[in-house]
Amino acid sequence: MDYFNAPGRNHLFVPGPVNIPDQIIRAMNRNNEDYRSPAIPAMTKTLLEDVKKIFKTITGIPFLIPTTGTGAWESALTNTLSPGDRIVSFLIGQFSLLWIDQQQRLKFNVDVVESEWGQGAKLDVLESKIASDTSHTIKAICIAHNETATGVTNDLAKVRQILDSYRHPALLIVDGVSSICALDFRMDEWGVDVAITGSQKALSLPTGIGIVVAGPRAIEASKHAKSLRVFFDWKDYLKFYQLGTYWPYTPSIHLLYGLRAALDLIFEEGLENVIARHSRLGKATRLAVEAWGLKNCTQKEEWYSDTVTAVLVPAYIDSTEIVRRAWKRYNLSLGLGLNKVAGKVFRIGHLGHLNELQLLGCLAGVEMILKDVGYPVKLGSGVAAASAYLQNTIPMIPSRI
Amino acid sequence: MDYFNAPGRNHLFVPGPVNIPDQIIRAMNRNNEDYRSPAIPAMTKTLLEDVKKIFKTITGIPFLIPTTGTGAWESALTNTLSPGDRIVSFLIGQFSLLWIDQQQRLKFNVDVVESEWGQGAKLDVLESKIASDTSHTIKAICIAHNETATGVTNDLAKVRQILDSYRHPALLIVDGVSSICALDFRMDEWGVDVAITGSQKALSLPTGIGIVVAGPRAIEASKHAKSLRVFFDWKDYLKFYQLGTYWPYTPSIHLLYGLRAALDLIFEEGLENVIARHSRLGKATRLAVEAWGLKNCTQKEEWYSDTVTAVLVPAYIDSTEIVRRAWKRYNLSLGLGLNKVAGKVFRIGHLGHLNELQLLGCLAGVEMILKDVGYPVKLGSGVAAASAYLQNTIPMIPSRI
Amino acid sequence: MDYFNAPGRNHLFVPGPVNIPDQIIRAMNRNNEDYRSPAIPAMTKTLLEDVKKIFKTITGIPFLIPTTGTGAWESALTNTLSPGDRIVSFLIGQFSLLWIDQQQRLKFNVDVVESEWGQGAKLDVLESKIASDTSHTIKAICIAHNETATGVTNDLAKVRQILDSYRHPALLIVDGVSSICALDFRMDEWGVDVAITGSQKALSLPTGIGIVVAGPRAIEASKHAKSLRVFFDWKDYLKFYQLGTYWPYTPSIHLLYGLRAALDLIFEEGLENVIARHSRLGKATRLAVEAWGLKNCTQKEEWYSDTVTAVLVPAYIDSTEIVRRAWKRYNLSLGLGLNKVAGKVFRIGHLGHLNELQLLGCLAGVEMILKDVGYPVKLGSGVAAASAYLQNTIPMIPSRI
Amino acid sequence: MDYFNAPGRNHLFVPGPVNIPDQIIRAMNRNNEDYRSPAIPAMTKTLLEDVKKIFKTITGIPFLIPTTGTGAWESALTNTLSPGDRIVSFLIGQFSLLWIDQQQRLKFNVDVVESEWGQGAKLDVLESKIASDTSHTIKAICIAHNETATGVTNDLAKVRQILDSYRHPALLIVDGVSSICALDFRMDEWGVDVAITGSQKALSLPTGIGIVVAGPRAIEASKHAKSLRVFFDWKDYLKFYQLGTYWPYTPSIHLLYGLRAALDLIFEEGLENVIARHSRLGKATRLAVEAWGLKNCTQKEEWYSDTVTAVLVPAYIDSTEIVRRAWKRYNLSLGLGLNKVAGKVFRIGHLGHLNELQLLGCLAGVEMILKDVGYPVKLGSGVAAASAYLQNTIPMIPSRI
Repeated sequence: MDYFNAPGRNHLFVPGPVNIPDQIIRAMNRNNEDYRSPAIPAMTKTLLEDVKKIFKTITGIPFLIPTTGTGAWESALTNTLSPGDRIVSFLIGQFSLLWIDQQQRLKFNVDVVESEWGQGAKLDVLESKIASDTSHTIKAICIAHNETATGVTNDLAKVRQILDSYRHPALLIVDGVSSICALDFRMDEWGVDVAITGSQKALSLPTGIGIVVAGPRAIEASKHAKSLRVFFDWKDYLKFYQLGTYWPYTPSIHLLYGLRAALDLIFEEGLENVIARHSRLGKATRLAVEAWGLKNCTQKEEWYSDTVTAVLVPAYIDSTEIVRRAWKRYNLSLGLGLNKVAGKVFRIGHLGHLNELQLLGCLAGVEMILKDVGYPVKLGSGVAAASAYLQNTIPMIPSRI
Repeated sequence: MDYFNAPGRNHLFVPGPVNIPDQIIRAMNRNNEDYRSPAIPAMTKTLLEDVKKIFKTITGIPFLIPTTGTGAWESALTNTLSPGDRIVSFLIGQFSLLWIDQQQRLKFNVDVVESEWGQGAKLDVLESKIASDTSHTIKAICIAHNETATGVTNDLAKVRQILDSYRHPALLIVDGVSSICALDFRMDEWGVDVAITGSQKALSLPTGIGIVVAGPRAIEASKHAKSLRVFFDWKDYLKFYQLGTYWPYTPSIHLLYGLRAALDLIFEEGLENVIARHSRLGKATRLAVEAWGLKNCTQKEEWYSDTVTAVLVPAYIDSTEIVRRAWKRYNLSLGLGLNKVAGKVFRIGHLGHLNELQLLGCLAGVEMILKDVGYPVKLGSGVAAASAYLQNTIPMIPSRI
Repeated sequence: MDYFNAPGRNHLFVPGPVNIPDQIIRAMNRNNEDYRSPAIPAMTKTLLEDVKKIFKTITGIPFLIPTTGTGAWESALTNTLSPGDRIVSFLIGQFSLLWIDQQQRLKFNVDVVESEWGQGAKLDVLESKIASDTSHTIKAICIAHNETATGVTNDLAKVRQILDSYRHPALLIVDGVSSICALDFRMDEWGVDVAITGSQKALSLPTGIGIVVAGPRAIEASKHAKSLRVFFDWKDYLKFYQLGTYWPYTPSIHLLYGLRAALDLIFEEGLENVIARHSRLGKATRLAVEAWGLKNCTQKEEWYSDTVTAVLVPAYIDSTEIVRRAWKRYNLSLGLGLNKVAGKVFRIGHLGHLNELQLLGCLAGVEMILKDVGYPVKLGSGVAAASAYLQNTIPMIPSRI
Repeated sequence: MDYFNAPGRNHLFVPGPVNIPDQIIRAMNRNNEDYRSPAIPAMTKTLLEDVKKIFKTITGIPFLIPTTGTGAWESALTNTLSPGDRIVSFLIGQFSLLWIDQQQRLKFNVDVVESEWGQGAKLDVLESKIASDTSHTIKAICIAHNETATGVTNDLAKVRQILDSYRHPALLIVDGVSSICALDFRMDEWGVDVAITGSQKALSLPTGIGIVVAGPRAIEASKHAKSLRVFFDWKDYLKFYQLGTYWPYTPSIHLLYGLRAALDLIFEEGLENVIARHSRLGKATRLAVEAWGLKNCTQKEEWYSDTVTAVLVPAYIDSTEIVRRAWKRYNLSLGLGLNKVAGKVFRIGHLGHLNELQLLGCLAGVEMILKDVGYPVKLGSGVAAASAYLQNTIPMIPSRI
């Protein structure tokens, strides 16, 4: 059953699904259970409480839906909006494109604000739209905290500030798939009404839980939203939350135990330490890219992503070939360039349960492949730049002092 | 992380999620992988081919959707029907009730045919509706092969025969959640247009794949169905099948490896042997119930289910207490009575990777609990009846001869 | 790699290796580690402390030797005795026979006290030998707490009393392989000088740790014992205990984590509860045997073992055939009759992490096989007898009340 | 249960226990089984055949003893020699020292040939001893193929040539613990009489099987050897091999399944490919050490080891601090300097299921620690040297072309 075996470990540096810590693999190594026994609700209760902590919300209500990020998007939209509703959505890369496609197929009236890929959401355009929407026709703003295809992080605090400046009641719906638990995300402080993520991203689980957290305004909206929905309907969850049995339909027992272990690991390391670790590894990656003489697809520092770096290659190189060779020669999994940047960028995902030497091994691999495809890289240069930074700044592993 | 530990194994006899064979647990004990590497599509290709075998279809196209049975229902409906479409649906227990609720919330015009709980679908009513529907206003027949709440198996061949007699073009949409891979199910022979099951049932995996198989007429219908859908849309799958990358969004790597192992186990045992095993264990269970002097909730032999037996208890006993004590005293997980039969039945699930002694251990436990709650059972009587049958009929394990 | 697959679980009722609880399987599901890092000594320290608790000793020193019970025997003997030393050893079954064979090959002067198989150690003979040995030529008494081949438990308190009556200084060396952690064993109270067990018995781990606990008199003896030994020498362990690194050579990281989990499970259930559970399951098994009209190989109640029951079959039946069929037909693993009782007994091991319904499933299986081989058993009779006892006496699982 | 958690993977670069491939971890993730069922002997038979292939022997007989390398040493010695026998043994590092200590404690008459640590066995001294031993008082030559403490590989073909030149009948007993399955080892071609290894080395399993392979002359010697032994006695194994049940006492089921998976992986990659991979990673490591301006403890190229590199540090640095910091700061496990070279060397183990990027990550880590402890290393220099070599020479992973 193991296709294409190779010696040693797979080096998994796509921006999701990410490496699963051994503690989580162990926690999921089990038989099924009856989810109607007292044990599963008791555990679920702790999960719902703890998920709120990683979203930094007190007032939000989490839904752990057995689906993927795509399903979580759909749940966020259909529970809060009705067909025909006007929404503003930012197209800055492949994943925001897919979300907009979903929004359009669900028959919302999508006001698309497009940026060049590699740039962040045009918040000045948002401001002018909000400013002029005095009759509040805009029902929601849909924005990705981090666009996974280009490695661009948007400034959500600024979005909130624009909405507040104009006292605009539009819901703020955030795709936090490649940010939450890795980047600094503050649901309550930023007035995010719905935020979502997927289990296979920074939480470091297998795919299978779409996590949706809905704030009070979103819950209120869900009572009136006319989009048809059953599987994704929050109402059924809320009914079973009231009953104390929690699950309107069968959850994945395995992912619940995995999520429990994931949360325990995050709290043990400390959420702020986790975020700081992502920040260091992101910076180290960018220093390596610079040392190689390559450009970051992300055009300005303000948008740099600490979870994924999209690297532009010279025109004479096909980035797809880099990804292909990485897997074939070194068992290194990198992210492809997608759609508009296909062939032009490859992506290094640096999110999840990673440490310095894993990243440096990846960077050393990228160097060899760059040379292999004809790019005049100086071997060791990226590793040197990254490790100089890491050596100066990384503290001891706290638990080992 | 293990809530409510107890000595020894949990005896899992709910009708899903069911026991996971060790071979499958091992197959899923792994890290994430890049689902865009060549390995995952190569494996997916084999899964799609092999899933068709367990549905007994050549012309069907499978979709392995990261969802549950509830999501699989929704996918079956929204891809083939438009709001307002008239459908005939059979209400014979809690799960058909939930499906009808979904059908109604998705705005179909549901013609509900209700039976007393414990009886099968009223196919005579179906026949009269079909006979009178000369203008073909009925777009689909929705029926469960096996109602999990009451242990009732419907006669699908008969449904097909009715439709054919009147040359009625209604789609036949079948909920095979608690039947496929355990009961004899024949998609092509019975002209089933859409059939679904869930990974956590007879396939013996964790929850997380909603398996939908669509026949040619259903695929054709999906091109015109107006129900809004994105996550559940077959179109996106079909596009990626064409591309050979198979996945429109992130699948669960773990469940794919698990499904591969599950299919291998089924083919190793032989699908017909698997079905025969369920038949024997189902019969043994019913013999035990009879020996205890209790009634099967299923009112006639023609509807007896070989995957789950709902046992009626005398009025002076609360079946919920039986389920509660089973778990507390003997680490035995039985199914509750649901809705109309709450307190009146408890359910023994006998599907999945089970053998004789597991079942007999369960039956011995039920006997002790029955005595415990005041029912005058003769200890050992059910085990004696079941084992007399099993001892006479069970062949050697084929691989061990 | 799975030879001879069969549907459902294997029912493991040999008296070792026994079932491994899922919690332990999970704990061992991991990569290797450097055993010279600070982590492994820190864990080892807790293991050594906690192992003492299950031997009920304060003054003993445990050695966790990477070996089996046979190696643990050898370590107990070679560290305390010199070639030519006179020892008294009791031959009551196959395992005491093997131990005596080892004693003889290690050149001790073994004074063998033989019983009929099915009887306990002849303590009256011991008494007469001790009484007459005024010059203290007897250096050690070697005795199994529980003979695994016949299901006979010896009275160790009585042995201690005999030695004390005559103020005889012989070391008391106890094979506790199929007793410790399952039967009531009291190292300090009974003045046991060396006690051993194996990881794959009541501790419910894989084979691989021979646990030897040496009391102060044994440690003193080890300084003078002339038997050659290196791998089994306690001296090397004691040296590394002093250094705080604990391991003279590479331990199995996996078994250490497994042992940690095993001890945690035992303490969570409560050692006395574990022993009481074995007592109940042992009694239930014997009641079933009686109901079948068969004889216990153990001839008197005072020797009944709560960890294994050897069942005598009528002369016209070959017990080997029972064991063979159990595995082939029902995936039930029973113990063979060994040596003198080969073909005459089969054994039901009921030790380790077991519960009522597991045992009743086993008993139901034995009934079917007995019938199958021509013994006129009444199906259900053993289950009825066992469950009547269990239903009356088993308390709720403490953690679930 | 996880002591000292840290983010990301542990980088395990001690020369044993080494990384366990996921395929092996999965294979061992299981319950115990009855080792007297037909399944375990059937598997054992394949193991014994296949172990011979990795020792490159046709005439040897393997013993898979539940012990460690230390026990395997003892088994090799006690089965072939009698107390008082003269043996020639080479002291070239800590592990040969420990073996000699064992030989002396087992009362052999050990003729120790000592080398400076960092040099190979003095084969010229061996030659003179052999030449002068015309009466064949030397019963055995004991030599490590690879000394794990100093990273020195001895020339076994040369040893055989010396013995043959003088037609000397001494047994050739080889410690192949850190060589077999990683270095080119040829039991039959080199006339090795007994060779041993441990499961936790190049076979990439947990600790727990001491593998001893005995050639025909060793088997013959075992019939006359007077060393006392029971647990380690080959005779008991040979008896059970005859019976076809294979095990004189309980084996570790888990390690047998693990060994099956390990052998399958080796044969899938190809034993010669495995050896070539070790050669490349060994060379890359040495190039990095050179680039750092540090010395290899191994003084001449002819002794360079492809499984472990001991790196000498300048006098002003304590190598123990390097190892300590590697673990604390970067979760990197390096080998300590032992005994005579304590504080002077640290060791990089590069054996087992490893690939290029794992090694480069380790080397990047060593660079940072070297800088951290005040050594003027140029960051990236070792990685550059190693990757330049690897980029030029590594072929594609065969299975992925």
